[in-house]
Amino acid sequence: DMVRQEIRKAVEEMLYTYSQDKLNKADFALSSGGAKIIVPLTSPTYEQWPTSWFKLAIAKLTGSGITRGKPPITALQPETHVGQCWPFAGQQGQLAVLLSRRIYVTAITYDHVSKTVAMGTTSAPKEFEVWAFIDDDNDSNEKTDQKMEQKSDENIDYVTSTLKNIPSNQPGSNILDSSSSSSSSSLLHSSGKDLKLGSSPNHLFLGRFIYDINGLPIQTFEVDKWNKPVRAIIMKVNSNWDNPSYTCLYRFRVHGRRADANQNFSTG
Amino acid sequence: DMVRQEIRKAVEEMLYTYSQDKLNKADFALSSGGAKIIVPLTSPTYEQWPTSWFKLAIAKLTGSGITRGKPPITALQPETHVGQCWPFAGQQGQLAVLLSRRIYVTAITYDHVSKTVAMGTTSAPKEFEVWAFIDDDNDSNEKTDQKMEQKSDENIDYVTSTLKNIPSNQPGSNILDSSSSSSSSSLLHSSGKDLKLGSSPNHLFLGRFIYDINGLPIQTFEVDKWNKPVRAIIMKVNSNWDNPSYTCLYRFRVHGRRADANQNFSTG
Amino acid sequence: DMVRQEIRKAVEEMLYTYSQDKLNKADFALSSGGAKIIVPLTSPTYEQWPTSWFKLAIAKLTGSGITRGKPPITALQPETHVGQCWPFAGQQGQLAVLLSRRIYVTAITYDHVSKTVAMGTTSAPKEFEVWAFIDDDNDSNEKTDQKMEQKSDENIDYVTSTLKNIPSNQPGSNILDSSSSSSSSSLLHSSGKDLKLGSSPNHLFLGRFIYDINGLPIQTFEVDKWNKPVRAIIMKVNSNWDNPSYTCLYRFRVHGRRADANQNFSTG
Ligand SMILES: [K+]
Ligand SMILES: [K+]
Ligand SMILES: [K+]
Repeated sequence: DMVRQEIRKAVEEMLYTYSQDKLNKADFALSSGGAKIIVPLTSPTYEQWPTSWFKLAIAKLTGSGITRGKPPITALQPETHVGQCWPFAGQQGQLAVLLSRRIYVTAITYDHVSKTVAMGTTSAPKEFEVWAFIDDDNDSNEKTDQKMEQKSDENIDYVTSTLKNIPSNQPGSNILDSSSSSSSSSLLHSSGKDLKLGSSPNHLFLGRFIYDINGLPIQTFEVDKWNKPVRAIIMKVNSNWDNPSYTCLYRFRVHGRRADANQNFSTG
Repeated sequence: DMVRQEIRKAVEEMLYTYSQDKLNKADFALSSGGAKIIVPLTSPTYEQWPTSWFKLAIAKLTGSGITRGKPPITALQPETHVGQCWPFAGQQGQLAVLLSRRIYVTAITYDHVSKTVAMGTTSAPKEFEVWAFIDDDNDSNEKTDQKMEQKSDENIDYVTSTLKNIPSNQPGSNILDSSSSSSSSSLLHSSGKDLKLGSSPNHLFLGRFIYDINGLPIQTFEVDKWNKPVRAIIMKVNSNWDNPSYTCLYRFRVHGRRADANQNFSTG
Repeated sequence: DMVRQEIRKAVEEMLYTYSQDKLNKADFALSSGGAKIIVPLTSPTYEQWPTSWFKLAIAKLTGSGITRGKPPITALQPETHVGQCWPFAGQQGQLAVLLSRRIYVTAITYDHVSKTVAMGTTSAPKEFEVWAFIDDDNDSNEKTDQKMEQKSDENIDYVTSTLKNIPSNQPGSNILDSSSSSSSSSLLHSSGKDLKLGSSPNHLFLGRFIYDINGLPIQTFEVDKWNKPVRAIIMKVNSNWDNPSYTCLYRFRVHGRRADANQNFSTG
């Protein structure tokens, strides 16, 4: 009977953790929480064109007959049923995210569809790097940011629940708003897709990691402690599990401590 | 080995409960099950207008630049990822629901995003009241209602699976159909949003409850037994966890025993 | 303490199985994985027309006022909240699926909403048969199919993640592509809806099963081993749990071993 009580208590604790988005950790890259794709720094979505010359001509003329992958925002959404991923061509590409908050990054998580329910595993990412951008104007904007952050903090649930006037699958809908912080503006006027990560003191290398397709579907990677808050972050994929055509990303998560005035908030 | 068997049995039982919409209790306020928002008795959805005078002028002229919250139907849907909530302005507001069935209410449940994965908790509801409306024509329509209910019962799964011709995010899509029962008609000809709850013998007070943001995300509140069936119900929020701008509701559920002829149905 | 460790290990194992689409088995009939409805061999979706002559006339004239069920693709999707099902009229009907891969079928699963959270159970299927179609051109196309399958295999995640140019709720969107294999072409030139199952040696009877509404919501039925790969499969419902108006299918799953060259793939 005491064993029975112990069982129930352990199961409740584990089910509770599982039910909180399977990890019980806030994800500052979740799209419904306000995270956005930084389009100019994100690889193009994979497209598959027809192979016969005739169908190819039709496709070039009319635009139909081209099979396109789901948009990059898909990699910031929790659904991981087979096919709910964002593909880019080949083994190397990158996903750039404007987080819903400025944070001190503590960990990142990559979720893939389980290989036991998947129908192929070669398009999973293997080795990848995570980079972040330190805000240039960190010191001079500290007070201003805190004031904006304060107001934004009060409105978080509401802002995240908004229905944008621009449909989410329309090109440009993930382009940064004019209301985003100045650090993203400076990013956009960087070298775009040809950005050389590591070429600036503002480029913060958070780590190089290996996603093990033979391990658990959800894998979390600790990030060494940094004393710099960030809001823009890039997952740069260097290799996949041997698919030469494309790589498909299911879900990228970013965990951390908030960098605003509300230090009494606990995410523990 | 006997312990191992005991563990597995307890886990299966708890996973089963968890997998049945996390509570294993029918929810007569679930939108996919046929519940609807009673629009005239529900608070307006929170909107956030631009702060600069210039952007405000553009917004008033063109209608763009206004950030609107998700519609009230969101509070009758099971998704509780961050941002999947319906906001109303301030700390006081109400949500009015036409249940999918006439029932004797036994309990209500409020689900919020867990504070461990949320990025703010102040917009959660704190103290709220639940009211219901007794059907005026209860006795005289008893036989007619039972006959309609009988036919409606046979069609429940099908009706709930319908794709409405009116898109769900279009204004007015939740306005009551002409096929709804007469009690809702009489509601609509009441004082609308200025309805004084408690001013009529048909207003049934089901309870005043406190949602504890520091407790479990899903909290169920028992309702004293009543011998009156109801179909319209209101969650009236009196305070939140200290957000002066708005309150955001994730999910409101209503449990009970059906009030139709099929008393042999078990929801136990 | 050893008991505590044992508990945690057992719970992790069961939660892992549960989190892999609740069964930890690949589903070759999952729509997001590439499975499609074979429209000409699938029963019409149930419609409910108005009962009064006046509303009926308006409906026939304008097309509005008709309540239609969700499309058949719904039965190939994992959501099983109340109402997320595909209805056909009466107790007898069928659902035809082009699987995402050619496989050797090992089992099929039927998921229904749990009777403890449902508001009615009579529209659940009771007795049903499962049939498959052997590819006519099996031997002569073996090499060609393997080559196509090889290329298709490399592209599985990407193809499954595609956003089709044709909206998914538009009539005809599930009609087979011209790029589908030749076996589906020969199917379509069979006798359509009036197909007499069993009248051809290419019709493979996989079994007759009983879905027990009083059992677990998810029920898996083993299929005797066959040495024939298949890609088209039919769930033929013979009776439901006593609803004369319609039957509503929540989710049909098909499990098996892949029939292509990649025998080193494990789905175990
Ligand atoms: K995803
Ligand atoms: K919700
Ligand atoms: K479904």
